[in-house]
Amino acid sequence: MTQHHTSAPDLDRVLDRAASAARPLRHTSPATRASWLRAVADSLDAAADTLVPLAMDESHLPETRLRGELARTTFQGRLFAERLESGALLSVHVDHADPDWPMGPRPDIRRTHVPLGPVLVFAASNFPFAFSVAGGDAVSALAAGCPVVLKAHPGHPELSRATASQVIEALASTGAPEGTFALIEGEQAGVSAVQDRRIKAVGFTGSTTGGRALFDLATSRPDPIPFYGELGSTNPVVVTPAGWAKRGAEVATGFAASITLGSGQFCTKPGVVLVPDAEALLSSLPDMSAGPMLNDRIRSSFETSLARLSETPGVEVAAEAARNDGGVRPTLLRTTAKAVIADPSLAETEVFGPAALLVEYASLDEVVEVLDGLGGTLTATVQGGTTVDDDALRVLDLLSEHAGRVIWNEWPTGVTVSDAQQHGGPWPATTAPTTTSVGTAAIHRFLRPIAWQNVPSAGLPVELRD
Amino acid sequence: MTQHHTSAPDLDRVLDRAASAARPLRHTSPATRASWLRAVADSLDAAADTLVPLAMDESHLPETRLRGELARTTFQGRLFAERLESGALLSVHVDHADPDWPMGPRPDIRRTHVPLGPVLVFAASNFPFAFSVAGGDAVSALAAGCPVVLKAHPGHPELSRATASQVIEALASTGAPEGTFALIEGEQAGVSAVQDRRIKAVGFTGSTTGGRALFDLATSRPDPIPFYGELGSTNPVVVTPAGWAKRGAEVATGFAASITLGSGQFCTKPGVVLVPDAEALLSSLPDMSAGPMLNDRIRSSFETSLARLSETPGVEVAAEAARNDGGVRPTLLRTTAKAVIADPSLAETEVFGPAALLVEYASLDEVVEVLDGLGGTLTATVQGGTTVDDDALRVLDLLSEHAGRVIWNEWPTGVTVSDAQQHGGPWPATTAPTTTSVGTAAIHRFLRPIAWQNVPSAGLPVELRD
Repeated sequence: MTQHHTSAPDLDRVLDRAASAARPLRHTSPATRASWLRAVADSLDAAADTLVPLAMDESHLPETRLRGELARTTFQGRLFAERLESGALLSVHVDHADPDWPMGPRPDIRRTHVPLGPVLVFAASNFPFAFSVAGGDAVSALAAGCPVVLKAHPGHPELSRATASQVIEALASTGAPEGTFALIEGEQAGVSAVQDRRIKAVGFTGSTTGGRALFDLATSRPDPIPFYGELGSTNPVVVTPAGWAKRGAEVATGFAASITLGSGQFCTKPGVVLVPDAEALLSSLPDMSAGPMLNDRIRSSFETSLARLSETPGVEVAAEAARNDGGVRPTLLRTTAKAVIADPSLAETEVFGPAALLVEYASLDEVVEVLDGLGGTLTATVQGGTTVDDDALRVLDLLSEHAGRVIWNEWPTGVTVSDAQQHGGPWPATTAPTTTSVGTAAIHRFLRPIAWQNVPSAGLPVELRD
Repeated sequence: MTQHHTSAPDLDRVLDRAASAARPLRHTSPATRASWLRAVADSLDAAADTLVPLAMDESHLPETRLRGELARTTFQGRLFAERLESGALLSVHVDHADPDWPMGPRPDIRRTHVPLGPVLVFAASNFPFAFSVAGGDAVSALAAGCPVVLKAHPGHPELSRATASQVIEALASTGAPEGTFALIEGEQAGVSAVQDRRIKAVGFTGSTTGGRALFDLATSRPDPIPFYGELGSTNPVVVTPAGWAKRGAEVATGFAASITLGSGQFCTKPGVVLVPDAEALLSSLPDMSAGPMLNDRIRSSFETSLARLSETPGVEVAAEAARNDGGVRPTLLRTTAKAVIADPSLAETEVFGPAALLVEYASLDEVVEVLDGLGGTLTATVQGGTTVDDDALRVLDLLSEHAGRVIWNEWPTGVTVSDAQQHGGPWPATTAPTTTSVGTAAIHRFLRPIAWQNVPSAGLPVELRD
């Protein structure tokens, strides 16, 4: 992998072109933007045989997974296109003039949305297609009519460049203005761009540390901008007593599959699992295996954070699988609910990789106390029995205080892209709890409402005319 | 006026009670919250003869204005109540399971919203009812199901306490949990509360300096929270050549009324007015007069900022009215478009009080250049002719890049409360350009989306059941 670093003069040109593209983009119709998104999706699908091998080489992920991920990525672009065409995403509201409005005569007020302007997107390492160059942040910003400046992830530079070429060519072929999309590379370029006045919003998926540093830069600008960061999450799972009694074997199998999927490198990996009987779960687990990790940096960071957590008093290593080709072993740690109640940070330590912390509880009251100490999380799961009993009801309700998505008897890995999807949550899951980074509602991060008062039809945006 | 300062132990009790109220509030139905809002509105209306004299005494605003503002405030509460009852504000989205979903089988996903938790609201000085203790931020947070901790504005402490008593009593009488609403006083209490983990979001209306300082505290917390600040705005107005030729007299009268309304102490006061002929406008102006200002601090700050702007090279005092009882004179400054193009900060200096800067332009191209240098603004107005000509079209389009509300042939002061209303805008108008602080959409600042996956009816929130 050859790392490039976008130079300061090159970055300046990229930002100038993005700023120049903002106005023509604001004037495009949703149907026009839909045609761009379809062209991008078609182009990426057509280039699959070039892109997938590059991705395999740079991410060490298997071909089936990467082909599936690419399909997800192009599906996502087409879903936005469809919703732009149907008008579902761009709600308008009209209040006609009302001389009898109780607080005093009301003028004609009509609300629509305008794009925020150039958006800087930081790609993630763990989904080289779906959360990278043509991923959810980029596609939702383009759908909104915002030029996109894409900071490549250094984990897959060749794939990033190849994907960006496809995107840029597809956009040009459908008449999108120059500057609608550009790729930048290197940490310094990203840091400079976050602070540049021409950038009006940021999308980020990655670690809490990296995301926090960039969030601080965005919010400390002389002109602060919205920063949509999806950071760390431990995705707690509660196996209720009935869940274990009635569905124990299924829980054990599902759990082993979920923490090793993608070698545990999912932001929704279940990292903390509360169980009534840790020993029973451990003895029911199938053999676990995981593929190699994305790169050496992530492997080494996995091992460090795993070692740190396992050396915490009260925590012990409960099970280790055989090492894979890349030298990594899926690992389960265990502790007790009492230990987590005494030190809630145990349940907030994300170990990015194929590992989880089993938390054995003695009573549902202990579960409640553990959950009360939780921070924000992307997902939270209940593994219950065959019906929702009182324990399950209590736990579902508590989990809904912390999570963006609450799941029953399924596993949090695997995030479908749909209209109702919500991928977010309170800090530290994200920096913007009122938004989602997956699903069509993600477009709203990059639009701002604008009201037109008393403006005759001829002066109104098309969608607001009578 | 006796200033109180909420002590640290008292603040701690207030925050504990707010945190304890969050869970029962989350479980209330929209209809229950509607009944609270109606009880608060009824109670404030019934107390008008006590509250209005207090407000007159502390704010120096006239009785008619204050009675109108109280009516606006209670109308606003009832509007939220009505919309909660009709379900208009709490959208849900259901994606049923779909085995044929193109990216792979889709589970059942249903999205609704949950309140963020305790909200800290900083009251403003200039609307002692509508943006204060029972103002838009407090009411929209309560409508969302968030406990409210209200930081009183020191400009009207007795009124704040009297209003808070009514609110607290009305809430208690309708069964709202203790801790649903509390008043705190003093700068230190506000600063401590912004940084406290029990507070989950902040609403603020006030100066750019004060708002920025609190925004910085909120975003630099170990667990950053959303900060919805409505800060400064110069609310530019462009009088087009046709607007002056065809409606000159009306423009002059409307302008004089708008900048002196409420002694110019409106966040939507038109502070910068681009005109083709400043002399002609000046000679057409009616006599201007303004009432006393809210308090000595604001008067002195008005005079300081006015003096500073008038001493800037290229700016001169063009007209001064007679001083009012409070010693303040409505004042017009003038400069040229060329000067603003050379120094865009001229058009971004908010002078809070009865004053405005006339900017004379030589051509529409100059107007375009001035507008290109603008920052964000709450409102932007075109005073055009009797139809939307090409000049007007061009200006409307440019203004829509910067403003939350674009107005045609009316004035920006006077912000109606309705469903389509948008009161916001890019920095420095607000810290959160995708949101509004006026109108029923303001509720969305205090709600976060949550998706429920594969959860049987018995475990779902009521609004998501089949």
